[in-house]
Amino acid sequence: MSQRVSDDAMAEVIAETRSDSSSRRHGGGDDAVVTDLPYMHRVGTPPKQPLFQEIKHSLMETFFADKPFHKFKDQSGSRKFVLALQSLFPILEWGRDYNLKKFRGDFVSGLTIASLCIPQDLAYAKLAYLDPWYGLYSSFVAPLVYAFMGTSRDIAIGPVAVVSLLLGSLLSSEISDTKSHDYVRLAFTATFFAGVTQLALGVCRLGFLIDFLSHAAIVGFMAGAAITIAMQQLKGLLGIKNFTTKTDIVSVLHSVWSNVHHGWNWETILIGLSFLIFLLITKYIAKRNKKLFWVSAISPMISVVVSTFFVYITRADKRGVSIVKHIKSGVNPSSANEIFFSGKYLGAGVRVGIVSGMVALTEAVAIGRTFAAMKDYSLDGNKEMVAMGTMNIVGSLTSCYVTTGSFSRSAVNFMAGCQTAVSNIVMSIVVLLTLLVLTPLFKYTPNAVLASIIIAAVVNLVNIEAMVLLWKIDKFDFVACMGAFFGVIFKSVEIGLLIAVAISFAKILLQVTRPRTAVLGKLPGTTVYRNIQQYPKAAQIPGMLIIRIDSAIYFSNSNYIKERILRWLIEEESQRTESELPGIQNLIVEMSPVTDIDTSGIHAFEELYKTLQKREVQLILANPGPVVIEKLHASKLTDLIGEDKIFLTVADAVATFGPKGVK
Amino acid sequence: MSQRVSDDAMAEVIAETRSDSSSRRHGGGDDAVVTDLPYMHRVGTPPKQPLFQEIKHSLMETFFADKPFHKFKDQSGSRKFVLALQSLFPILEWGRDYNLKKFRGDFVSGLTIASLCIPQDLAYAKLAYLDPWYGLYSSFVAPLVYAFMGTSRDIAIGPVAVVSLLLGSLLSSEISDTKSHDYVRLAFTATFFAGVTQLALGVCRLGFLIDFLSHAAIVGFMAGAAITIAMQQLKGLLGIKNFTTKTDIVSVLHSVWSNVHHGWNWETILIGLSFLIFLLITKYIAKRNKKLFWVSAISPMISVVVSTFFVYITRADKRGVSIVKHIKSGVNPSSANEIFFSGKYLGAGVRVGIVSGMVALTEAVAIGRTFAAMKDYSLDGNKEMVAMGTMNIVGSLTSCYVTTGSFSRSAVNFMAGCQTAVSNIVMSIVVLLTLLVLTPLFKYTPNAVLASIIIAAVVNLVNIEAMVLLWKIDKFDFVACMGAFFGVIFKSVEIGLLIAVAISFAKILLQVTRPRTAVLGKLPGTTVYRNIQQYPKAAQIPGMLIIRIDSAIYFSNSNYIKERILRWLIEEESQRTESELPGIQNLIVEMSPVTDIDTSGIHAFEELYKTLQKREVQLILANPGPVVIEKLHASKLTDLIGEDKIFLTVADAVATFGPKGVK
Repeated sequence: MSQRVSDDAMAEVIAETRSDSSSRRHGGGDDAVVTDLPYMHRVGTPPKQPLFQEIKHSLMETFFADKPFHKFKDQSGSRKFVLALQSLFPILEWGRDYNLKKFRGDFVSGLTIASLCIPQDLAYAKLAYLDPWYGLYSSFVAPLVYAFMGTSRDIAIGPVAVVSLLLGSLLSSEISDTKSHDYVRLAFTATFFAGVTQLALGVCRLGFLIDFLSHAAIVGFMAGAAITIAMQQLKGLLGIKNFTTKTDIVSVLHSVWSNVHHGWNWETILIGLSFLIFLLITKYIAKRNKKLFWVSAISPMISVVVSTFFVYITRADKRGVSIVKHIKSGVNPSSANEIFFSGKYLGAGVRVGIVSGMVALTEAVAIGRTFAAMKDYSLDGNKEMVAMGTMNIVGSLTSCYVTTGSFSRSAVNFMAGCQTAVSNIVMSIVVLLTLLVLTPLFKYTPNAVLASIIIAAVVNLVNIEAMVLLWKIDKFDFVACMGAFFGVIFKSVEIGLLIAVAISFAKILLQVTRPRTAVLGKLPGTTVYRNIQQYPKAAQIPGMLIIRIDSAIYFSNSNYIKERILRWLIEEESQRTESELPGIQNLIVEMSPVTDIDTSGIHAFEELYKTLQKREVQLILANPGPVVIEKLHASKLTDLIGEDKIFLTVADAVATFGPKGVK
Repeated sequence: MSQRVSDDAMAEVIAETRSDSSSRRHGGGDDAVVTDLPYMHRVGTPPKQPLFQEIKHSLMETFFADKPFHKFKDQSGSRKFVLALQSLFPILEWGRDYNLKKFRGDFVSGLTIASLCIPQDLAYAKLAYLDPWYGLYSSFVAPLVYAFMGTSRDIAIGPVAVVSLLLGSLLSSEISDTKSHDYVRLAFTATFFAGVTQLALGVCRLGFLIDFLSHAAIVGFMAGAAITIAMQQLKGLLGIKNFTTKTDIVSVLHSVWSNVHHGWNWETILIGLSFLIFLLITKYIAKRNKKLFWVSAISPMISVVVSTFFVYITRADKRGVSIVKHIKSGVNPSSANEIFFSGKYLGAGVRVGIVSGMVALTEAVAIGRTFAAMKDYSLDGNKEMVAMGTMNIVGSLTSCYVTTGSFSRSAVNFMAGCQTAVSNIVMSIVVLLTLLVLTPLFKYTPNAVLASIIIAAVVNLVNIEAMVLLWKIDKFDFVACMGAFFGVIFKSVEIGLLIAVAISFAKILLQVTRPRTAVLGKLPGTTVYRNIQQYPKAAQIPGMLIIRIDSAIYFSNSNYIKERILRWLIEEESQRTESELPGIQNLIVEMSPVTDIDTSGIHAFEELYKTLQKREVQLILANPGPVVIEKLHASKLTDLIGEDKIFLTVADAVATFGPKGVK
């Protein structure tokens, strides 16, 4: 039946689409105004699609917005197979154009990020309460897998500070004895399920779910995590032995203070602080002069080498300076049968895996997008998730823990001139060589230097500029940011994350329940109608009230919108009565921004119409969109309101029902 | 600093707001087109509000949209006290205008709904596995409380079928022995917390939360619940002794079938079916002729009287016809010390209370709104919740179970000519008299008649018309409706409710992640730009692509919007290259529907700008709203894009950057 209605409407549109003179003409001085002019164009109803088409279209737009199967169309079977392989392993596609010039860029940047990542790996593993070599393992396998499957050219893969902290915090709340073998096994289990989560999101094309963590919440969460991480490093930097296991700032400062007399070790402090100052200075230099980025990129490695050498010759470890002591040599052992696929830790592994997998993904996608926009290539979000997922699943089977894209190393990678993911392969090979040959050299590396490297690395995560910008642009975003920030530093990483997610959702819910409405006025000398608050020159039309609804009308806001419109009407009427202006006979609802309406919205309009009728006010609609006009027809609301009360523009409606003389 | 930027912008607006001739003039044939004309109006920035004002305004709009404190302004202390009392007890306000004429209406309608509610009360209490007199108790206290505090004039208060079913289902899953005293105590506990939930929602002004249950989901849930309730009545109607305790349709039909040979009682079936037919016929008569509504209103009472008399004289109860047997006489006893305020059932009571309180509220508010719209008076949602909450709290202390507005009885109340909530008081007094004097008469009432009354009452809840309308108007709404419907009938009431809520939320999330965008074209002979899919006559401008974003831009959709715009660009470019049309140099983004933008949205625009720059396409914005332009200024995005690329209308932008000759 709705088919019939819309066919009729189409016929009307065609019949009335004439090209004769329009009442919308203006500026011609005092020409006589004819209010009953036929308009050039009536409100159009788009051709009705068959039901299946309609559902298909809307599913496609939701889940396959990027048209992934587009290129498979009209191809032979073998070609389809090649395309499918290329789509799973993008290296097969871009690898064919690979050349020596590109390799030069990738080689240099690969070496640079390797020198940066090795000391970071040792340090970050400790954040997750894992032995340092697991960091190196993770920087060997994961980047290799990513290089074959990822679509970003600039991202540098490996363990990162925030995810390591989150993982350590979540895992240690499940197994408090972090030295036990079960702890390591749980870490692999969580890594496996983090990978499964990421893969599932990619395969089910639910990548848009990570968009629900707002930028503002991430800024706050990251800053909080950075401060928490830095505070944790006070243990290594000050050589404190009895350090709290809690991560909140109060416990940590209390722990630092209570150890002030007997726990601090001045040799450790000397080493730690001097290298921290060195690292911060190089960071500052690199920030001032972008060309000197390599200074800060190699400074961690220099710090490690110099401090290790220094400790070795002075034997400072005998005087209380804590050192790395032992690093397992050799390539990653298999961990396939370490993962808990049953038993009491399975549930914990799944939970921790889902949370850390989502956070890792959020970070990776944010980084990937940033650099893709800078170089103007497109990043396939769902493909990225499949790549990340596979990388972590493979990683969990080969003694790696959760890896993702590192912001600082990706930036260095970018500045060092990387061309493709081959720079990750170069880095991976350097890490492999380190694992095979160089690990004994790290024996005398002081933990204080690793602490300095972590602090210097996370300093950038406290993005004060971004926070100031949030404050300036959107106060609500700032609140979300601060909520996450204080949640992390005063309670724990998990609480901070929870606050971030909760605030993000609260914002969405607010947005859909309380849409904006605006009263419009006519800009003098034009037929343009605009918000009278934004354009104080815009004048209201006597006897008319023009209201724009700035949102789709759904069950969550239909009642509010109806009541808000009535409130505008009552307020305006009492104001006009006070100023002795004529009362309101016509209420024009400008529907341009209303992209969709559901059955609750239709009901709200029916109720609005009835209420207005009781008040002897005429309801007029202007410019309903394609979906809306179709639904108005389907629900026969057009018959109730009257087809002649639905106009293409506000100007048309005013010309027809407004006072004479207003064009 | 954003203060400075916006002040500058204001100065500009004022300086450039001239009333000289505009390039928007058209229709004058082949006048020379001057593309660099100064426009009449620039995009305006509204006067900046101080931060506190801004926050206050947005909080007010969210929580105090109805301005509840408006009338307290500038009043003396004693007057404020009177107003506060009136606001808590609206009867003090409308009671002063009460007169005999109104009372006549209320008296007749009160008697009518009393005759309808007494048999229903006996029947509905059994749905909640409570003794029948609790239904009568609930119809005595609750309507009295509501009459003093409620703002609806038409709603009829008391136990209702769906809430009774839900309560019975939830309570019996906590305490399976429904005959135990603990079961009754838990029912009072749940009622108390249902009231607390409702009161809290009202006081915290969180009434908008109930809007999150969509109309479509409610239609499906109600229909499913009605069928489940009707199926449950087969026990009483067929006189089956061993009936399943499950509510899903498969278990019930299996139970009915397995009892076919020895469990059915023909006398019971005869009584039940004949009165069911009688009730359905009277319903049909009332539906055909609205004036005969009283026929169906009194038919349940007639059925009870006739069937009771019949059983009494034939002593059919001796032949297996199940009868009510005993109804406690006298007024409600206190149940204040029956409520579990501690112990193992407290948690269950709170949970059940919250769920049943929310569902009861949803029903009451829907009814209240419907009738308020029909008579054009305003219903204060938050005040309604306070009234409902108080009513259920008081009820839980006086042996009532959860009550709310009954749709069928409210409709009868309305049609019988009720004027105010006094009709509830009349009904309440009749119920009181019944409790005091008439209960012994119900001893021989056959349970089969109560079953018939329930079936006849819930038939209307299966609203097939509404379902057909959902299908026609919005397919997604239809899916939500069916999901809730099948969830209730094939699993349980709770599962159906859960599905309804989940689908409603999924819809909101979809709405905020995948907003619509449209390509615009110029309607021939006008300066109006419209969706080319809706208006096939609308023509695209050579060298330009005009895209309208149909949603506020937030973190949840900013990335999608950016990528969608780029996809439009790529698709359009390849199409135009095929048709040998000029390439696209200008991308106009029509921002009229974009009511707000957050920091993620600003980032997305920055990235869009950079990508477009790489492609040598110019980004132009048309008609950003007040909030958006302020944020564009605050983030300095206007400097990046260029103030001269921001226009009041698409037509202005086309006139400036479009090909010569297009006006």
